[in-house]
Amino acid sequence: MLALTFDGTLRVCSDVAVPRPGSDEARIRVTTAGICNTDIEITRGYKGFNGILGHEFVGEVAECVQDDWIGRRVCGEINIACRACPQCNAGLPTHCVRREVLGIIGRDGAFAEYLVLPLRNLHAVPDALPDDVAVFVEPVAAAYEILQQVPIEEGACVVVVGDGKLGLLCAQVVAQTGANVLLLGKHDDKLCLARELGISAQRSADVQGVRADVVVEATGSPAGLQRAIELVEPRGTIILKSTTSSRCSADMSAIVVKEITLVGSRCGPFPEAIRGLEEGSVRVLPLIAERFSLDHAVHALERAAQAGMLKVLIDIGTN
Amino acid sequence: MLALTFDGTLRVCSDVAVPRPGSDEARIRVTTAGICNTDIEITRGYKGFNGILGHEFVGEVAECVQDDWIGRRVCGEINIACRACPQCNAGLPTHCVRREVLGIIGRDGAFAEYLVLPLRNLHAVPDALPDDVAVFVEPVAAAYEILQQVPIEEGACVVVVGDGKLGLLCAQVVAQTGANVLLLGKHDDKLCLARELGISAQRSADVQGVRADVVVEATGSPAGLQRAIELVEPRGTIILKSTTSSRCSADMSAIVVKEITLVGSRCGPFPEAIRGLEEGSVRVLPLIAERFSLDHAVHALERAAQAGMLKVLIDIGTN
Repeated sequence: MLALTFDGTLRVCSDVAVPRPGSDEARIRVTTAGICNTDIEITRGYKGFNGILGHEFVGEVAECVQDDWIGRRVCGEINIACRACPQCNAGLPTHCVRREVLGIIGRDGAFAEYLVLPLRNLHAVPDALPDDVAVFVEPVAAAYEILQQVPIEEGACVVVVGDGKLGLLCAQVVAQTGANVLLLGKHDDKLCLARELGISAQRSADVQGVRADVVVEATGSPAGLQRAIELVEPRGTIILKSTTSSRCSADMSAIVVKEITLVGSRCGPFPEAIRGLEEGSVRVLPLIAERFSLDHAVHALERAAQAGMLKVLIDIGTN
Repeated sequence: MLALTFDGTLRVCSDVAVPRPGSDEARIRVTTAGICNTDIEITRGYKGFNGILGHEFVGEVAECVQDDWIGRRVCGEINIACRACPQCNAGLPTHCVRREVLGIIGRDGAFAEYLVLPLRNLHAVPDALPDDVAVFVEPVAAAYEILQQVPIEEGACVVVVGDGKLGLLCAQVVAQTGANVLLLGKHDDKLCLARELGISAQRSADVQGVRADVVVEATGSPAGLQRAIELVEPRGTIILKSTTSSRCSADMSAIVVKEITLVGSRCGPFPEAIRGLEEGSVRVLPLIAERFSLDHAVHALERAAQAGMLKVLIDIGTN
């Protein structure tokens, strides 16, 4: 099959073996995949992953032992848990100590004609959600994780730092709480887009004196944390979303002096994401910037790595 | 009066004006003061403070408008709040936006014959507490702040990183919750002292595979956070206690991936500290390493800055 592989170098290979599902797994024919900042970071050394990249996808079940799944349109949770370790027993499969993560740790990913995931990781995609929307379920779920971790009160002042894909999704999700959300960024076109999505938005450099109850750090840059520390109120909360391959340097003394709570936030609940997309409370189609066929996936990743680029999709198959 | 001043250079001056209390303040004759790591960091540029250093003290009220305070032995909270800003109105005087902090921000400190604090900052020292114990109330209160911020369950695995003054105090305070406390350090003599105080202690470099529910970072070093990140369980909590003048570089992606909660923790409740010291549940006398008269305070700070040094006291007056 055709797949985008990474072994220090990115290349599209046409002779990759089609993966075979185990007894509790499904082989999924990928129709559309999305490029995440984590994919870019992996090509810079993050997690030391070698294999097929990609973890945002929508596809169709092509093979599995349970006939009722065959042909269904699905998206899938990306953490493959062992179901036996202390974390799994504590109900935290996303923190399984032996987990594989689709296209990130130990398991080939979605930039390929086929991928394999356990059946329990799959979520049926409602007919109302076209592929171009359903491919966003995974990152939208990551945004909903914020609401699972941190209580956000109606009327609270929440600043989202970063006007990229993740920032625009987080801002829309947090706005559903009734909080006053302000998105700060540095790209006029994306700040405009945020406003079209109903989110107040300003250039970060123009903003002085904001004191946020909660700051969502979604810049994808090691410098984002320092800005978040400056913006948050004493005893306020910073939600850290960015994963970068480089270390982050910040004035951690300010975290002590302001008694800030900083919460790391990763993968989130798929059902909430699917519901939010169905209801239209999170709008994603305006975030699609460019799309390429799988043959041109190397170029697609180059484009996605451009500063200021929104979502780049890879078209792999058709429904 | 005699005082240790800092204006880029530390010096003991004999001609410093005796401070005069305002109508709601007291002038306190300092008997004993303690040197904190923050004092050392100030001499390295932290907070840009110029003036009389020192914020850990015990003394006797020498002058104030309320006669019943005169002659009483006191310790004092170090944040002088405006009582009018949003933080003060929210019941967070330690986060007052216009606060002065004794010997740290905008107010001369305790390494002097006299200091001035508002009466509302003072706490009477019980007769049962000798000066050498009472001088620890401020840092012990900072350790009790942990219990105000983070619920620690009986039987939880808590690792305290750092075998210095603050680590030894935090470990004793956290042990009162019934948690299993392990102190990690690098000085054999201090690890021995921890064990004498009833705390399990090991060399940090010898420890592999510990997974802590809670890590208290009390190394006083920018490198401590990275060690804490490695030690804490997924979804665990790091309490950050160190304030350093230099920036801290750490793998913040691990905070995201492990969904760690990091809580900055600063000044704490004096009544709990006084009670803990009275009951003997926190023992401090074994932490006193050296003592000097105020004339030799420059040398005292040099000694306190030595790697591995425990508490250095400055004797200023007598009861």
